[in-house]
Amino acid sequence: MHYPNGKKNDQTQKTLANVSKSHAFSNRGMTLEEDINAANAFYRDTGKASIHKKPTPIQVVNVHYPKRSAAVITEGYFKQPSTTDYNGIYHGRHIDFEAKETKNKTRFPLANIHEHQIRHMKSIINHGGICFLIIRFSAHGETFYMPAETLFRYWDDQINGGKKSIRYETIANEGHIVPFHYQARVHYLAIIDKLYF
Amino acid sequence: MHYPNGKKNDQTQKTLANVSKSHAFSNRGMTLEEDINAANAFYRDTGKASIHKKPTPIQVVNVHYPKRSAAVITEGYFKQPSTTDYNGIYHGRHIDFEAKETKNKTRFPLANIHEHQIRHMKSIINHGGICFLIIRFSAHGETFYMPAETLFRYWDDQINGGKKSIRYETIANEGHIVPFHYQARVHYLAIIDKLYF
Repeated sequence: MHYPNGKKNDQTQKTLANVSKSHAFSNRGMTLEEDINAANAFYRDTGKASIHKKPTPIQVVNVHYPKRSAAVITEGYFKQPSTTDYNGIYHGRHIDFEAKETKNKTRFPLANIHEHQIRHMKSIINHGGICFLIIRFSAHGETFYMPAETLFRYWDDQINGGKKSIRYETIANEGHIVPFHYQARVHYLAIIDKLYF
Repeated sequence: MHYPNGKKNDQTQKTLANVSKSHAFSNRGMTLEEDINAANAFYRDTGKASIHKKPTPIQVVNVHYPKRSAAVITEGYFKQPSTTDYNGIYHGRHIDFEAKETKNKTRFPLANIHEHQIRHMKSIINHGGICFLIIRFSAHGETFYMPAETLFRYWDDQINGGKKSIRYETIANEGHIVPFHYQARVHYLAIIDKLYF
């Protein structure tokens, strides 16, 4: 609806196609983000939960207002998100999580998470929410659910001079493998059901 | 941090100043959004609640990657949000709301709300969340809290051929006036405390 003519629509599709290709290193050829979006859409469509990805924050610097067509942002910059990427509600509980994909086969580097995101996640836990991290090891085609409380342990350890990454075996042992579901390809609510309900 | 040189930063400030000026029709010279952001920052800083404004969704069409500086979005379009603008957690409860400011002195036009936002708000209520609308009548300098359930009544009535707006008196009677607090200028948690805790 924001494309006054076919040309821009074509450009969008081209751009999106390039993005998809460069990120498509998961076994099923879909990014973790696409899988989670599909799961969330399925959860919403079936009335199971209302969970959304937050838009990417963008600093808009210049906007051009052409006559008879939509405003065009002509200068903008990606900003660092101050929270996690996903949140919503399930069975009356507040849900909040971040999702990260790594090509690394043996460990998950903690540099994938920002300090302000940890601060946000701690605040969610303090307020009684359900908070976690979804980690996909694309080389193994495996996706794990790691409770925020477990993540905090390794994060705080790192701050105190500990390891800068979490080993794959540790995540496999202390996390929960997220089952594949035809319509909810990253069926993380199955883990929440097991842990909380 | 995304400004490789002083020039862009200046442009940003200029742009933001223009935006503020054009929206500054509230009594205290602050927009409703600025007041709510200040309240949310106060709630977060004092550990009272974790509630955030979601970023404005933008369709990024073209990105330029200059050497040795941040990626620049050179073509983007504002998208219509599919949910409400604010959500978070308070006392373990999921909070979700939309905020609207009107210059109209006698009524709040329902055209300010989109149908998919109503659908989203109904889903939040169904899942056990606390959902509401904040309405500011800038001409009166008054801000009201209207429970989503009340809004649905007028919305559904409109769908069935009823009035396309809600009268100021109705909102004043059926809503709750949001108190001003020095640090939480739109102190909506005071109303939630009264209604839910």
